[in-house]
Amino acid sequence: MTAALSNPLRDPRDKRLPRIAGPSGIVIFGVTGDLSRKKLMPAIYDLANRGLLPPGFALVGFARRDWSREDFSTVVHDAVKQYARTPFSEDVWRHLAEGFRFVQGSFDDDVAFDTLAATLADLDEVRGTGGNHAFYFSIPPDAFPVVLKQLKRAGMCDHSEDQWRRVVIEKPFGSDLKTAQELNSLVSDVFPSESVFRIDHYLGKETVQNLLALRFANQMYEPIWNAHYVDHVQITQAEDIGVGGRAGYYDGIGAARDVIQNHLLQLMALTAMEEPGSFDPTNLRREKVKVLAAVRLPEDLMAGTARGQYAAGWQGGEKVPGYLDEEGIAASSQTETYAAVKLLVDNRRWAGVPFYLRTGKRLGKRVSEIAVVFKRAPHLPFAKGDTAELGSNALVIRVQPDEGITIRFGSKVPGPAMEVRDVSMDFSYGQSFTEASPEAYERLILDVLLGEPSLFPQDEEVELSWRILDPIERAWAKARTQPEPYGSGSWGPASADALMARDGRAWRRP
Amino acid sequence: MTAALSNPLRDPRDKRLPRIAGPSGIVIFGVTGDLSRKKLMPAIYDLANRGLLPPGFALVGFARRDWSREDFSTVVHDAVKQYARTPFSEDVWRHLAEGFRFVQGSFDDDVAFDTLAATLADLDEVRGTGGNHAFYFSIPPDAFPVVLKQLKRAGMCDHSEDQWRRVVIEKPFGSDLKTAQELNSLVSDVFPSESVFRIDHYLGKETVQNLLALRFANQMYEPIWNAHYVDHVQITQAEDIGVGGRAGYYDGIGAARDVIQNHLLQLMALTAMEEPGSFDPTNLRREKVKVLAAVRLPEDLMAGTARGQYAAGWQGGEKVPGYLDEEGIAASSQTETYAAVKLLVDNRRWAGVPFYLRTGKRLGKRVSEIAVVFKRAPHLPFAKGDTAELGSNALVIRVQPDEGITIRFGSKVPGPAMEVRDVSMDFSYGQSFTEASPEAYERLILDVLLGEPSLFPQDEEVELSWRILDPIERAWAKARTQPEPYGSGSWGPASADALMARDGRAWRRP
Repeated sequence: MTAALSNPLRDPRDKRLPRIAGPSGIVIFGVTGDLSRKKLMPAIYDLANRGLLPPGFALVGFARRDWSREDFSTVVHDAVKQYARTPFSEDVWRHLAEGFRFVQGSFDDDVAFDTLAATLADLDEVRGTGGNHAFYFSIPPDAFPVVLKQLKRAGMCDHSEDQWRRVVIEKPFGSDLKTAQELNSLVSDVFPSESVFRIDHYLGKETVQNLLALRFANQMYEPIWNAHYVDHVQITQAEDIGVGGRAGYYDGIGAARDVIQNHLLQLMALTAMEEPGSFDPTNLRREKVKVLAAVRLPEDLMAGTARGQYAAGWQGGEKVPGYLDEEGIAASSQTETYAAVKLLVDNRRWAGVPFYLRTGKRLGKRVSEIAVVFKRAPHLPFAKGDTAELGSNALVIRVQPDEGITIRFGSKVPGPAMEVRDVSMDFSYGQSFTEASPEAYERLILDVLLGEPSLFPQDEEVELSWRILDPIERAWAKARTQPEPYGSGSWGPASADALMARDGRAWRRP
Repeated sequence: MTAALSNPLRDPRDKRLPRIAGPSGIVIFGVTGDLSRKKLMPAIYDLANRGLLPPGFALVGFARRDWSREDFSTVVHDAVKQYARTPFSEDVWRHLAEGFRFVQGSFDDDVAFDTLAATLADLDEVRGTGGNHAFYFSIPPDAFPVVLKQLKRAGMCDHSEDQWRRVVIEKPFGSDLKTAQELNSLVSDVFPSESVFRIDHYLGKETVQNLLALRFANQMYEPIWNAHYVDHVQITQAEDIGVGGRAGYYDGIGAARDVIQNHLLQLMALTAMEEPGSFDPTNLRREKVKVLAAVRLPEDLMAGTARGQYAAGWQGGEKVPGYLDEEGIAASSQTETYAAVKLLVDNRRWAGVPFYLRTGKRLGKRVSEIAVVFKRAPHLPFAKGDTAELGSNALVIRVQPDEGITIRFGSKVPGPAMEVRDVSMDFSYGQSFTEASPEAYERLILDVLLGEPSLFPQDEEVELSWRILDPIERAWAKARTQPEPYGSGSWGPASADALMARDGRAWRRP
């Protein structure tokens, strides 16, 4: 612990004790995949480098590949070198790598799982992991049942008061309410609810957590954070890339299930929720659940939503194919790559304030933001014409990239007239803090090891999100129409603009 | 007019008709002084260059110097070359200089004033100034009576319905309520109240006018601009220079009379006032007057104020003398070079919210700002220690230099804990507008020519300001103590910090 406290990467101004994980290890299923190499391995190294992992930490890979422990170590080494955020330290690496193990096998291979169980028991001895193990499911959902069964059979889920076993699962958390409930029930047969950690990496982002600080540590914002002053809220997640290598997963799922059900509804809940009694997980979830339960869909679901599918076009000076021409996508696919929905929140704070959520691939820019757009001032004591170029005030939380906050407001244009025009003021994370933002996965993996569930959506939240999305998906399926094509590099289909225009509003161009 | 409209210095985006002065001229008394050379002459040229003066504009200098019209023209030329903001144009200059005249004489010289009257009559003929003349008093107040008498005697104040005569006076507008009333009465004997323009150049600053746009064109700020959310307001005017060549004027006057009575109380009135029905002068003044009339002094005037006198020290790497060692200052002078006062506003919006006003010479930095400091959030749902480094939210209007707006608020420090620390977001005039800010004197001279009195304090405001300051000055005089010395380059005397500390607050370090 002393070594960790004097770690040079820690901010010397932070006088409080750091949150350091106790004795523990992680087993990754699907360790040969992209997520594992690009996010999980580097995050584990970065945590070790920051002194936040226990000295005897263990990382066990499980996969079909015929790798030796040394092969596995080399793969992790390369991943760390390529993707880690903190500088490479031979010392930290050597120490960490001593805790690496690799177990070869397929998910239906009892022997492999028995070997895994023996490996964990051995690690408890030689590395002092103390019987505390997290199982990271970086695998497709259809493999969940067999892996869960194997873990149970081989006795790896038996936790006691002084030992914990946790399971980490990645989205999709089902594809509708029914499958989500099935999945929740399947997992909870093996792991109790408090041992299940669902990763929504958006919640690990600094800018998303800062939403809580912004709203509840300050005096300035909360008084105007309600239907008296807010006209509407826009939550955007835009990608400039296409479906890429994810065709197999994405087709049939689409933008709404892939992004709105989890990321955007979670952002909406954090934006709209009341102040929690504290930030402990129970209080935080209770407030998010209250928002999700208060969401009301537009009466005319087709008019209150929009969906699109990207067409061929030019992006970044490059000719890109349309969705239907992507490898692995059926030419008749009705999967949407753009989705926008209008939601209302039936409570006193937000009555009459629409939340517009949109996401899409191949849009004009890669950007995620929450924009709280305020009403116009109730009266403008200005001469006619002086406020012609005045828009609405907006507070924009820039989730990524260029993390920060922007406020749009009207300011006098220099000169003899009292002319007012919109200007921006900016807060930038990068410029304001010397502390580097930890990668979302770093934060989330540490929280799993600490048993800190605040940033993980709980089964009730997942089910409520599907309750919101299911009627929309059903309406879309019933319509049996092709999603409206939109040009790659544009900002989505015309129907999305029409949705806003009908309300006398317009999407922001981030 | 057509030439003016196509002037390249005008912003082509501004589609409204510019406010261009009609036929007119200005007479400057005290034309050989610093203010005239550094501010008035360049401002007149800049106005001409921006196409905002009438083609036949006239500028008449009046002084004792034995100058020819050519000498005068050379002096203006040099002043323009050195201090004007817009590029020098031979064309504009030649045109403008044709309207220059110089009248030599002293203020008790009847013949000189008769010559001045004849000169104006001639300008009405040859330049088409149409009988519209502004008399700019860039002279000490003790010269006002004689000049006013001369203007009246020589018939230069007789205005009619289609001709105007206006007088422009610079501070000091008296040295207490009594002398201010005497001055007001003296001037109003000769010029009707609507023809008197008192220059408070702070009101000509873009940032000060933007206070009106910020508050009343936006939805975000006005809801929190009151005693429910504001803890206190700090208004600062700090100079880093000493008394310099102004010793003769300054000694016996001091910081409070020189700056608080006019600039700072005007800034306070604009910050605290209710929304005016419109920005027309009557409405605007009514709201400012309401604030000034509602100001209440602290019961213990000595505890609620502070005054200091700068001592010798080092500033900007240079050894600087103390106030008492400055040339022209008596070694026993009790004139304060630093003054701070705490004021309360007895109305519903500001009940219990102190306004702290301070000004001083030889302070740490040249800066003027209005800081609205908010209360802490009523409750902080954060873990103990996480908000240890969280201060109060503040909205700071940076009047000068680096004109703009800063908001201080708490943001999450990147890292695994929910630690909150203060950060800033900034709006900068320079970066947000391509339009250059006109110099305050440009704006104010144009307003004089246009007969637009919004930005000029009216006699009632001046008298109310003295009603606020007089009791303080009397308390100080009664104490007969030497102002507390403070080091040059510091932020004022210890008693000023103690004033704030007694209220559990602290001055900002801008």
